[in-house]
Amino acid sequence: MLRRVATRWHERAGVPVGPGDDMAVIEVGGARLLVAADPVIEGVHFEPGTHERRVAAKAVHRNCSDAAAMGAIPRATIMCVMLGQGCDQDAAERLLDALCDTADAAGCPSVGGDISVHDGPTTVAVTLIADPAGAEPVLRSRARAGDDLYVTGVLGGSMVDENGYIHHLDFSPRVAVGRALVEDASLRPNAMIDLSDGLARDLPRVLEASGGLGAEIELNRLPVREVVAGQDGWRRAIGDGEDYELLMSCSSAMPATIRGVRLTRIGRVVADGGLRYLTGDGRCFTEAELSGLGWEHGR
Amino acid sequence: MLRRVATRWHERAGVPVGPGDDMAVIEVGGARLLVAADPVIEGVHFEPGTHERRVAAKAVHRNCSDAAAMGAIPRATIMCVMLGQGCDQDAAERLLDALCDTADAAGCPSVGGDISVHDGPTTVAVTLIADPAGAEPVLRSRARAGDDLYVTGVLGGSMVDENGYIHHLDFSPRVAVGRALVEDASLRPNAMIDLSDGLARDLPRVLEASGGLGAEIELNRLPVREVVAGQDGWRRAIGDGEDYELLMSCSSAMPATIRGVRLTRIGRVVADGGLRYLTGDGRCFTEAELSGLGWEHGR
Repeated sequence: MLRRVATRWHERAGVPVGPGDDMAVIEVGGARLLVAADPVIEGVHFEPGTHERRVAAKAVHRNCSDAAAMGAIPRATIMCVMLGQGCDQDAAERLLDALCDTADAAGCPSVGGDISVHDGPTTVAVTLIADPAGAEPVLRSRARAGDDLYVTGVLGGSMVDENGYIHHLDFSPRVAVGRALVEDASLRPNAMIDLSDGLARDLPRVLEASGGLGAEIELNRLPVREVVAGQDGWRRAIGDGEDYELLMSCSSAMPATIRGVRLTRIGRVVADGGLRYLTGDGRCFTEAELSGLGWEHGR
Repeated sequence: MLRRVATRWHERAGVPVGPGDDMAVIEVGGARLLVAADPVIEGVHFEPGTHERRVAAKAVHRNCSDAAAMGAIPRATIMCVMLGQGCDQDAAERLLDALCDTADAAGCPSVGGDISVHDGPTTVAVTLIADPAGAEPVLRSRARAGDDLYVTGVLGGSMVDENGYIHHLDFSPRVAVGRALVEDASLRPNAMIDLSDGLARDLPRVLEASGGLGAEIELNRLPVREVVAGQDGWRRAIGDGEDYELLMSCSSAMPATIRGVRLTRIGRVVADGGLRYLTGDGRCFTEAELSGLGWEHGR
């Protein structure tokens, strides 16, 4: 249901870059700016009992990750906080303090919003305003056949508790990397997206938005988070989601690291044929064939 | 609880005009813009079963009312839609279509956002971006002793069904009036706010933000919605809330109408003494004394 209504909604945009990219690009008062909004909902995006600092971090950082994917700089946040009935005053204050602290630290202070109590799960809907700051935003729709595909960091296992670090709550958005990519013309990707739903879902968005291209992913090149590495690590890397890493489509070779963050070439864009996965022994699978092998999306 | 946490949150702002006014004023890319966010929540801001067009109208228009109170022009909206479990696909599509239509008609097209399903009441959190468009935004904090107080339209009875018109769902935000007030220096109010919680709650916000001023409201001057007029109509006018009319504090006399909307002088700002209500027979009550007479806030 969501897909159908979301598509219909998104087709309605009348702006330079509308819904469908990581952020919308609009013009107000002669300036271009980028806006996006994503909520975090108790029971959907975080478990009841999650520390307020982690809830706040995820609420702010998943929006900053969208700015990173456009090469833009987060500037301000506006928040609607809906507190569940079980949220007492101390918890509410901790959450709101944490939201302010996180937003301040991310360079996008909370400048307004609303706080309500409702008969539902605690929800924080954050709108982020970001600044292209002189650089053309990188869209997801400009990938070209022949591009190499790169990702930042490692993929998979975002829900695993690694001695207290749980990536989907504790990640750092790749804002500095995104910015470095647009500030140096030799590094600028043709297309970029942040990996929120997993490579297997997010890469097709790039291919589709870029006019129906295909791609080949070399499974043995995927940088897999150590805690889920192993024989089937690639399944986790393409399907777990919530990596909040950057996926980029580039015509030029990229360095091994940018701003201290590892970049890995994981495959290439081809003219057509959809998304295919290549194994180390030369076999090639579509996603449907992978599903036939028992693979399922992590979400 | 909400008041305490909201105050604490709002004290954290580091922007030209931060949380606490109707909209925050921020600078991005050399341009000034205004942002605000307010949700509408099923069971809080609208009853279950309310037509999606009315839900959408309220969600968009209550934010536009904030822009009106600053004298700014709505330009774009970003929406987080959380659908309750009882919301089927048809209802979801109607709601999203209505949100787009309403936002388009209000001049602030929906440029992005997110749609989720959650285990709670259907909620639409709208962030509005508005443009000062060359006019200094009117703040709530610049009222002066000696100012006259005016309101647009009529007050009270916003929840009453008047042959199918229910003001709190069906109102038109006073954007054109707000704009007319800032485009003519002779009309510009010193301070302005939109009446969302009722005069008895919203006027003290102006007085407090303006350095602790007082005010006298002449009860027999209050423009009361006809359906609740009568002996106690003034109680409804000051307490019902959800009027979404503009309250302004002006040093110069105002015309009887602006853009076809009635303006009524309802009292004046004084140096101190808090908010007092004057009756036609010369008696003067504080809000506490009114409460002692059996009066209660409508919300």
